[in-house]
Amino acid sequence: MHFATVLPLQSGASLRDYSLSFETYGTLNADQSNAVLICHALNASHHVAGVYEGQDKSEGWWDNMIGPGKPLDTNKFFVIGVNNLGSCFGSTGPMHTNPDTGRVYGADFPVVTVEDWVDAQARLLDALGIQTLAAVMGGSLGGMQALSWTLQYPDRVRHAVVVASAPNLTAENIAFNEVARRAIVTDPDFHGGHFYEHGTVPKRGLRIARMIGHITYLSDDVMNEKFGRQLRSVVSKEAAAAPGRPKQGTTPSGGSAAHEVASVGAYLYSTQDVEFQIESYLRYQGDKFAEYFDANTYLLITRALDYFDPARTYGGDLSHALARASCKFLLVSFTTDWRFAPKRSREIVKALLDNRRDVSYAEIDAPHGHDAFLLDDPRYMGVVSSYFDSIAKEVGARS
Amino acid sequence: MHFATVLPLQSGASLRDYSLSFETYGTLNADQSNAVLICHALNASHHVAGVYEGQDKSEGWWDNMIGPGKPLDTNKFFVIGVNNLGSCFGSTGPMHTNPDTGRVYGADFPVVTVEDWVDAQARLLDALGIQTLAAVMGGSLGGMQALSWTLQYPDRVRHAVVVASAPNLTAENIAFNEVARRAIVTDPDFHGGHFYEHGTVPKRGLRIARMIGHITYLSDDVMNEKFGRQLRSVVSKEAAAAPGRPKQGTTPSGGSAAHEVASVGAYLYSTQDVEFQIESYLRYQGDKFAEYFDANTYLLITRALDYFDPARTYGGDLSHALARASCKFLLVSFTTDWRFAPKRSREIVKALLDNRRDVSYAEIDAPHGHDAFLLDDPRYMGVVSSYFDSIAKEVGARS
Repeated sequence: MHFATVLPLQSGASLRDYSLSFETYGTLNADQSNAVLICHALNASHHVAGVYEGQDKSEGWWDNMIGPGKPLDTNKFFVIGVNNLGSCFGSTGPMHTNPDTGRVYGADFPVVTVEDWVDAQARLLDALGIQTLAAVMGGSLGGMQALSWTLQYPDRVRHAVVVASAPNLTAENIAFNEVARRAIVTDPDFHGGHFYEHGTVPKRGLRIARMIGHITYLSDDVMNEKFGRQLRSVVSKEAAAAPGRPKQGTTPSGGSAAHEVASVGAYLYSTQDVEFQIESYLRYQGDKFAEYFDANTYLLITRALDYFDPARTYGGDLSHALARASCKFLLVSFTTDWRFAPKRSREIVKALLDNRRDVSYAEIDAPHGHDAFLLDDPRYMGVVSSYFDSIAKEVGARS
Repeated sequence: MHFATVLPLQSGASLRDYSLSFETYGTLNADQSNAVLICHALNASHHVAGVYEGQDKSEGWWDNMIGPGKPLDTNKFFVIGVNNLGSCFGSTGPMHTNPDTGRVYGADFPVVTVEDWVDAQARLLDALGIQTLAAVMGGSLGGMQALSWTLQYPDRVRHAVVVASAPNLTAENIAFNEVARRAIVTDPDFHGGHFYEHGTVPKRGLRIARMIGHITYLSDDVMNEKFGRQLRSVVSKEAAAAPGRPKQGTTPSGGSAAHEVASVGAYLYSTQDVEFQIESYLRYQGDKFAEYFDANTYLLITRALDYFDPARTYGGDLSHALARASCKFLLVSFTTDWRFAPKRSREIVKALLDNRRDVSYAEIDAPHGHDAFLLDDPRYMGVVSSYFDSIAKEVGARS
C-alpha cells in the first residue's frame, strides 16, 4: 500500500512518500473486531503464514503459529502481517529510490525506530478501516513493537502478546549488535552504505554479522547437543545448495539437515579449514544470509533494537512508562534464552502489575534459547492457543 | 633461548629450529625444588610480573598475583614466564623467517597445540636444569596447559593451579573463535596469511575479533553496571591515545578511564556513529589490539583452544584421561564466567576425584566474568596465597 502523506519520524527526519508491503489471512468480521497484527523481528517479513502458490517451501516465518486451526486461528481471526519500513522485503527501504534526490537511499535512509514502525502500522490499519485490534503480537523485536503499540495507541489494542522480548537491550545486547554493524561498515565493499552504486555487496560483513547472530539465538546447551565437538562432515554441494529454509528460520536442525553426516575422526590441524561441525553450520548460515539480506537494513534494524527503551523518558521507571497501557497482556519467555532472558520479560510483567493491569505470563522451560519463539514447543503453542481462544470469545469471532 | 633440536608437533609437522622468550623472577633454590611455571592465555606473554626499568606502566599481566610478598611470592619461589610458540611477543612465530624457505612463515607456521607448547616448555626447563616443578599455573588457556602438564609429564609436576579453565571448549566457545577467525581471514588485507609481504595488516578483522573477545570476557551484569545504556561520552583524543594498559588487561574500568565522561542526553539517530558507551569501549579495545597483535597468532592460539581435549582419545571419558595425573591440584572458577563456566571446572574436579587425587576447589562469587582471573578479588588472592604457602612449606622454600 502506498502512502503519499508525510510520516514524521522520531529522529526529526520524515518520509514524505512510502509503501508498506503486507499480507492478510482470514476474514475481517462485520464489526472489524477480529483483527490481529503480527510484528516481525530482525530478518523476517510480512509473509507470516501459508505458502505461495506453486512455490514449495515458501512457508511464512510463523507458519507453525498462524493459520487455519493453528494457535492463532485464521478461521477466527483476520491476521495482518506487515513488512517494516527500512526492511528489504518490499516496504520502502534503503534499496529504494529517495524521491527527494532520485538516488537510491542506501545509508541515507533515515533511522527508523520501533515507535516509527508502529506509527506506520497504525496508518496501514487506518487505510484498512480497522480502528481497534483484537491483538497485536510479536516475538523478540516484534514483541517490542507489540509493547509499544500499547503505549502509543492504547485505545486501539485489546490484547498484546509479547514473546521472548525485553523492555530494552542490555549493554551486552548492544555490544553484539555493534560488533555485527562494525563488521558490515568496515567491509570495503560497503562503500559508506552506497554499495549499490558500486555494484558490490558487503558480503564479508553480512556473513560475520549473521554468524554472531546465530550464536546468540541458540543456547549453549542446544549447541552442545546439536553440534558439540563433532568434527566436520563432508558437505555435499547439492545439499548445501538446496534452497527453502524459512527466512527467519534459525534452527540448527535445518542447517545440519543440509549436510551429509560423515564425520571424520582426525583433526586436520588447520586454522582456516572447517574442522568442527559448528563451524560448517555457521559458515553456511552466514553465506546464505549474505545472498539475500540488505546491509543497510541490518544496520537500521539493529539500531531500532538498541534505541527501544520506553522507560527512558520516565527516568528509567518502567512502571511509570507502562501506565499508559490499558489492554490485557500475555507475555512468554523461554528459560534458556540468554539474548532476551526471562528476567527481562519479568520486568515487563512487574511493571504492568504495578499498574494493576491484567497480565498472563508463561515461562517455558525450553532448551532452544532465543530461537524457541519460532519453534514448536507444545506448552508454548498451548498457552498462545488458549489465550487466543479467550480473545475469540471476547470479540465474538467464530469460524 | 634458542633450540636447534627438532620439535615434533602433534599435527605431524615439526619445528627444526626455534626460540622461546622467557623471564624468571626470584631465585632457584639449591635443590631446584621451588620452580613455578606460569602458562599464558590468548594475548599475553612471558612478561608475567614486574616492570621494565624506565618503562612506566609495563607491569606484567599477572603482576597482581606474582611478585615479592604477593600470592605467588617470588621471595620464596623461582617463577618462570614463557612465551608460547606461534605467539608474537618474542618466541618463534608466524612473523619470523622459516629457515626452510627463507620466507616469513605467515600462514605457513605449523598449527601448534597445547600439548606442543607443553613439550616446548619442558625443553626449556631441561635447559634451565629444572627436573621437577613445584607448581605449574595458568588461567583460561593457560589453565589448559597446566592441566596438560600433569598428563604429559606427571613426574615433573608436584602441583597444578588451574584457574578459570575447562577440559575442552563447548560448541559455543568454538563458535565465537570461528567468527573471530573468519573476520580476520576474510579481511582483504589478510592475503591468505602472507600480509607481511604485502605491507598490510588485517586490522578490520583483528578489531572485530577483539570486540567479540571482550564481550565474552565480561559478564552481562558487569557490562550493565559499567556501561548499561549510557550514551557516548565525548572522547578526549589525548586520553584515548594514552598508552599503558597491560597487554592482557581486559577490564572495563581501564577502557572507561581512558574516556572523559561527559554523557550526552539525546540520541544521535545514527547507525554508524558511536551512540552508547559500550560501543565506544569496544571500538577502543579493538583499535588498540589491532595495533599490536599478529593476525596469524590469533588464528593459531584460538585453534589451540579449540583442539584441546584430553578426553578425546579416551572416548570422551575425562576420568579415564586424567588417571595419568599424579600431582595435587588447586582449581578456581568464577560464578559469572560464562566463557569457562564453573561447571566446566567442576568436570575436572570430578574426574580427578574419581581418580582419588588430592584436589582443592574454590568457586569465587565474583561479578567480573572470565576477566575475574586477572583481577584482584581478595578471596581469590587469598585462596591462591594459602595454597602456595603450603607448597612453600612442602618444598622447604623460604625467603
